[in-house]
Amino acid sequence: MQNVTAPIISMLTDFGSHDPYVGVMKGVMLARCPEARIVDLTHDVPPQNIHAAGYLLGANWRYFPPGTVHLVVIDPGVGGERRILAVQTGGHTFLAPDNGLLSELLEHSPADRIVSVENESLFVQPVSRTFHGRDVFAPVAAALAGGLPIDDVGPAANGYLHLPGIRPQRDADGQVSGEIIWIDHFGNLVTNITVDQLPSAPRIEVGGRVMYGLTNSYGNVGAGEPLALIGSTSRLEIAVNHGNAAESLGMDMGDPVHVRSE
Amino acid sequence: MQNVTAPIISMLTDFGSHDPYVGVMKGVMLARCPEARIVDLTHDVPPQNIHAAGYLLGANWRYFPPGTVHLVVIDPGVGGERRILAVQTGGHTFLAPDNGLLSELLEHSPADRIVSVENESLFVQPVSRTFHGRDVFAPVAAALAGGLPIDDVGPAANGYLHLPGIRPQRDADGQVSGEIIWIDHFGNLVTNITVDQLPSAPRIEVGGRVMYGLTNSYGNVGAGEPLALIGSTSRLEIAVNHGNAAESLGMDMGDPVHVRSE
Amino acid sequence: MQNVTAPIISMLTDFGSHDPYVGVMKGVMLARCPEARIVDLTHDVPPQNIHAAGYLLGANWRYFPPGTVHLVVIDPGVGGERRILAVQTGGHTFLAPDNGLLSELLEHSPADRIVSVENESLFVQPVSRTFHGRDVFAPVAAALAGGLPIDDVGPAANGYLHLPGIRPQRDADGQVSGEIIWIDHFGNLVTNITVDQLPSAPRIEVGGRVMYGLTNSYGNVGAGEPLALIGSTSRLEIAVNHGNAAESLGMDMGDPVHVRSE
Repeated sequence: MQNVTAPIISMLTDFGSHDPYVGVMKGVMLARCPEARIVDLTHDVPPQNIHAAGYLLGANWRYFPPGTVHLVVIDPGVGGERRILAVQTGGHTFLAPDNGLLSELLEHSPADRIVSVENESLFVQPVSRTFHGRDVFAPVAAALAGGLPIDDVGPAANGYLHLPGIRPQRDADGQVSGEIIWIDHFGNLVTNITVDQLPSAPRIEVGGRVMYGLTNSYGNVGAGEPLALIGSTSRLEIAVNHGNAAESLGMDMGDPVHVRSE
Repeated sequence: MQNVTAPIISMLTDFGSHDPYVGVMKGVMLARCPEARIVDLTHDVPPQNIHAAGYLLGANWRYFPPGTVHLVVIDPGVGGERRILAVQTGGHTFLAPDNGLLSELLEHSPADRIVSVENESLFVQPVSRTFHGRDVFAPVAAALAGGLPIDDVGPAANGYLHLPGIRPQRDADGQVSGEIIWIDHFGNLVTNITVDQLPSAPRIEVGGRVMYGLTNSYGNVGAGEPLALIGSTSRLEIAVNHGNAAESLGMDMGDPVHVRSE
Repeated sequence: MQNVTAPIISMLTDFGSHDPYVGVMKGVMLARCPEARIVDLTHDVPPQNIHAAGYLLGANWRYFPPGTVHLVVIDPGVGGERRILAVQTGGHTFLAPDNGLLSELLEHSPADRIVSVENESLFVQPVSRTFHGRDVFAPVAAALAGGLPIDDVGPAANGYLHLPGIRPQRDADGQVSGEIIWIDHFGNLVTNITVDQLPSAPRIEVGGRVMYGLTNSYGNVGAGEPLALIGSTSRLEIAVNHGNAAESLGMDMGDPVHVRSE
C-alpha cells in the first residue's frame, strides 16, 4: 500500500520512559522511514504483562487511522525461539512477538494475513541478543510503514498463539469471572469484562466488596465509596468517588472480579 | 486560517504518561489532521489542579509559533454541565474546559473570540461519559489545527469563568500574598508572584523561613541554604543551593508565600 | 547541508518529564524549524550526571540517520562561564555544554569541526539566567537542523573538555576497573567496560560478588542469581535472572566494577 499521507507507527512496550530504549528505536525507524509519524501509546506496560498489553492494544487501535503500523514489544522470550508476527486486519498492520498478546485483537477482528518476520536483510546488523526492539521490530515496522508489502517481511504463518484466560469465563450458573486488566494513574480498576457480558442488573464482587448495579456518575455514591461503571473502553470499571480504588480496595492487576445477576 | 507549514498542537493534561490516554488522543488527532505536529507540554499536572495548569499555560504558550492549537484537559467536571471553550488570542487558539484555567492567560492577553464547543458532528461517536479528551477535545483540536474556522465549532460564548485567587493579592500594607504554583523535579518552588509585583528590596517569607533580597546565582549562599531568584518564567522562585527546596522547607503546591519591603 | 528529508533533532537532558521544560523547548524549535522531527532519547539522566549522559550519547547516536542534530543539556554550569559547543563528526551534529560529556563520543569519532556557540542573534531574547535549554540550546539546534552552516553559530573552538575517569582504567596487573554507568528500569547494571576490554575468561567483581565468565542467556543461572553478559550497547552488563540486579546487589550508578582474567 502506498501511503498518500505520512504513515503512522504506534508504539506499545514495557520499556518505560527512563531508558534510551524507546528513543533509539525511533532513531532507527526515522533512519529507515523518514516520513513516519511515531506515537507512543504507552511504554508503562508492567514488565512482561501480556494480558495488559493485549487489552491496551485491543481497546485503542481502532482510534488510529487505517494504515497505521502498531509496534508492540512485550517480549519475555527475546533471544529465544519465539516467532515475531506481522499481521494485517481491519486495514491496520500489527507487529508483535507471537506470545498471545494478539489474541484479544484477532478474536474480534480476524486476520487477513499473518506472516512470520524472517527477512533478515531488513534487520539492523549485527542483531543483539537482548534488544530486538531496536534491531528487528523497529526496522521492520519502518519498512512496513514505508510501504513494503507484508509478504516481503517473511513467509505466511500458520496462525498465532492463543492465550488461554485472557477473556472472562462464564460458568454454568451464569457467573462471569474476569480479572483486573489495568489500573490507571487515578487508581481506577479496569476489568476485562465487556459491557455485552454484563447482566442487566449486575452484582459485582471485587476484593471482598459487593456492589449492585452500575452508575452513570461518580456523584451517585458518597465520597470514598466504590462504584461500578462502564468505562471509556466499554469495559466494567471500579472506581472510588474522590478516591483511589486500587489503594482503597487493596487490589492489583490480575486480581479476580466476579459478576452475576442480582 | 490556512496553515502554510504543518499545524502544531500542544497538549497539557493531568493524564500522566502511565496510561494510553494521551496516546489514543494522538491517534484520534492524526486520523483527523494527518499533518499535525503534536507536542507534549506536560501531562503531569496534579489531578484537577487548575491553578497549576493555568500557570503552565500562561508561562509557556508564547514560545510556540503563532497558529498553534493549545489543547488543555484538566477537567474535573467531565460528564457534567461545564462548557468547553475554544478561544483565539495573540494569534494562537486554545481549547479547554470553562473551569477557570484560562483566567491567567486571558487577563494578560484578552480574547479575540470565544466560542462554546457544541458542534457534535466533529466529535468521536459515541461520546463516552468519562473520556472527553479522546471523544471531544482531540477531534475538535484536530479540526481547528486543520483550518476549520473557530465559529464552525460552536456559538459565540459570553465570556469565561474567572477563577478567584489565581493571582497574588496585595493588602493595605503593601504585602503581596501568593502561593506555590509549581514544584519542578529539582524541588525548586515556583510562585505565582511575578517580577513586576516585587518591591525593590523584598523580604520573602515561606514556610516559616525569611529571606532578604534576590540573588543572581546559587553560589551566593552556602550549600543547603535557601535563596530567592527570578526564574525562567519571570516568577519568584525559591531554591536551595545544591539541594531540594521542597523537601528542605517542607513545602507543597498551594502553600502561601508572602513578600513585602524590607 | 541542505536536508532533503525532514531534519531530525534528538534530545538528551536531565530535565525529567514532569515539568514543561522539554515541551517548551520543542515549541521554540518548531517555531524556528517547523519541519524538524524531534525525538526524545531520554530526559531521565540523573541530575548533572555527565558520565551517564556521555555513555547514553556515545552508545546511541549512530542509530540515528546522518544529518541528525543531537541536543544534549546536562548543564550544571548554566549561567556561568562554561562554553556551549557545536560539533560535527560522522555526519552528525552535536550541541552540548563543554563540560566533558562529549569526551566518549569524540574519542571514538574525532571531530571534523568544533565551534563555540556565541551568535546571540540566534538566541531567544531575553536570555534567562537559568534556562539556556529554552533560550540558547533550542533555537541553535533548530537553526542547525534548518541548514545553517555550523560556522555561522560561532567561532572555531580550540578543542573540548576531556573528562578524566569516564573510561575504564587498566592497571599493571591487567585488571580493568570501570564503573556502573547506567541502571535500566529492569534493574540491569550497565558498566562502561566495552567488549574489547574484556579478557577471554573474565573474573568479574561487583559489590562484593564475584562472577566467572559471560553467559549468553538468562536461563544459564538459577532464578535470583546474578549473571554477566554483553548488552545491546556492547558493554559488560550485570543482570539477575528473573530479578532486579540493582536491588539484589545493592548497587548504584558510579559504583566500581573490576574485571581480570580468571
